[in-house]
Amino acid sequence: MTPDFRLDRTLSADELEAVLRQVGHERYHIRHPFHRLMVEGALTRGQMQAWALNRYCYQAVIPRKDAIVLSRIEDRPLRLAWRERILDHDGDGSTPGGIERWMRLATGLGLDADTVASQRLALPATRFSVGAYLTLVEKRTLLEAIASSLTEMFSPQVIGERVSAILQKYPYVDEDTLGYFKPRLTQAPRDVDVALAFVREHARTVETQQLVVDALIAKCEILWTMLDALHFSYVEPGLVPPGAFRPGDGA
Amino acid sequence: MTPDFRLDRTLSADELEAVLRQVGHERYHIRHPFHRLMVEGALTRGQMQAWALNRYCYQAVIPRKDAIVLSRIEDRPLRLAWRERILDHDGDGSTPGGIERWMRLATGLGLDADTVASQRLALPATRFSVGAYLTLVEKRTLLEAIASSLTEMFSPQVIGERVSAILQKYPYVDEDTLGYFKPRLTQAPRDVDVALAFVREHARTVETQQLVVDALIAKCEILWTMLDALHFSYVEPGLVPPGAFRPGDGA
Repeated sequence: MTPDFRLDRTLSADELEAVLRQVGHERYHIRHPFHRLMVEGALTRGQMQAWALNRYCYQAVIPRKDAIVLSRIEDRPLRLAWRERILDHDGDGSTPGGIERWMRLATGLGLDADTVASQRLALPATRFSVGAYLTLVEKRTLLEAIASSLTEMFSPQVIGERVSAILQKYPYVDEDTLGYFKPRLTQAPRDVDVALAFVREHARTVETQQLVVDALIAKCEILWTMLDALHFSYVEPGLVPPGAFRPGDGA
Repeated sequence: MTPDFRLDRTLSADELEAVLRQVGHERYHIRHPFHRLMVEGALTRGQMQAWALNRYCYQAVIPRKDAIVLSRIEDRPLRLAWRERILDHDGDGSTPGGIERWMRLATGLGLDADTVASQRLALPATRFSVGAYLTLVEKRTLLEAIASSLTEMFSPQVIGERVSAILQKYPYVDEDTLGYFKPRLTQAPRDVDVALAFVREHARTVETQQLVVDALIAKCEILWTMLDALHFSYVEPGLVPPGAFRPGDGA
């Protein structure tokens, strides 16, 4: 395979899955310098705030993303399975969902909830990346929309690193504040089972397999670009675009 | 007015235009450090290539952007005026349009035309920014779609700075290679007259005026974010995301 994952023949389902795992190995944001700084304990509180505030925009859009996917699924059993994602993120009215749990992380880091929820101090690059995710699931095929969710294959690893490092190295963050992550360790593998089974079943030609691989690369680029923008504005060279969050704001 | 351009009353058309010019003064990418480096003559040939290659993605999408706007205009005279933009950028089959002229700039800087046209080495942040522009003109109101074009009010200034600096400070670029810019100096003001007249006429409440101001800010953010990404990957800290152009590639 070429470095940019061009397939030259139809793969078996297992081979396709292996390529997808290789995409994650090379392109998932666990390799990004900003994540590395976080797990090394090298980020300031202001940088952690910038991360939480921007990542909130991503969390907030997930149920809408999944509603677009849901609207495109004709198979009722698959709709039932996909619907769980919306419940997980929006909550069910009593148990808080992922968005509320992420907000708890943001406020635990000292941010004001209304400021975070308004998204008005987020980096434009964050909003454009999140928008690219919505556009992908709306305009590409359903197969690609589902394949783009497969970054969840790699999320338990990034969450594992993140949670243990934050608890050890950022004394102002407690386990309660990190309540977002624990449920994701069981939700994500369940969601992956559904999405991976769909992809394995429906991508049986080299053309559709390439679409799947490219959709996963595109999703990795979305997550990576969000960290590029954080790194640029809050680490090096530290140029915050006009109107965006500056540590000290919204606290 | 507050620093983020919140209007607290309905403005006259002249006052609205003054606010829009103030948005440009504060937010247009002429103030971006990457542009400043360019006009100081401080960019390497590889950095100039990265700029031309990424900006090509923006140029290439403009006729599609304007076709979306065109599809939303009910007034025939306005459609006739707006159609000129598509001709300017796509050409008319004999005179080359803006996209071809930009390609000439890219190849004049030593890039391979097929590589540039494929857009496969562009930064993801460039593609997401360009995608955000398409989404804006598709999903917001026609008034906002038209207002977002008003960055053209400020483009003669940026072009003037850019062309004279490039000719003076980058000896490997000649006037012919910069053929993109000269026609823009007459096209842009003509386009601004049309768009500004529409905005002045149709934004007569504080709510619609705020939409106009915010659309122009959003467009400034799109242009600014493209330069942020170039600066991050090719100036400081110089972290090129996986799969994107590295100086020396595609030459």
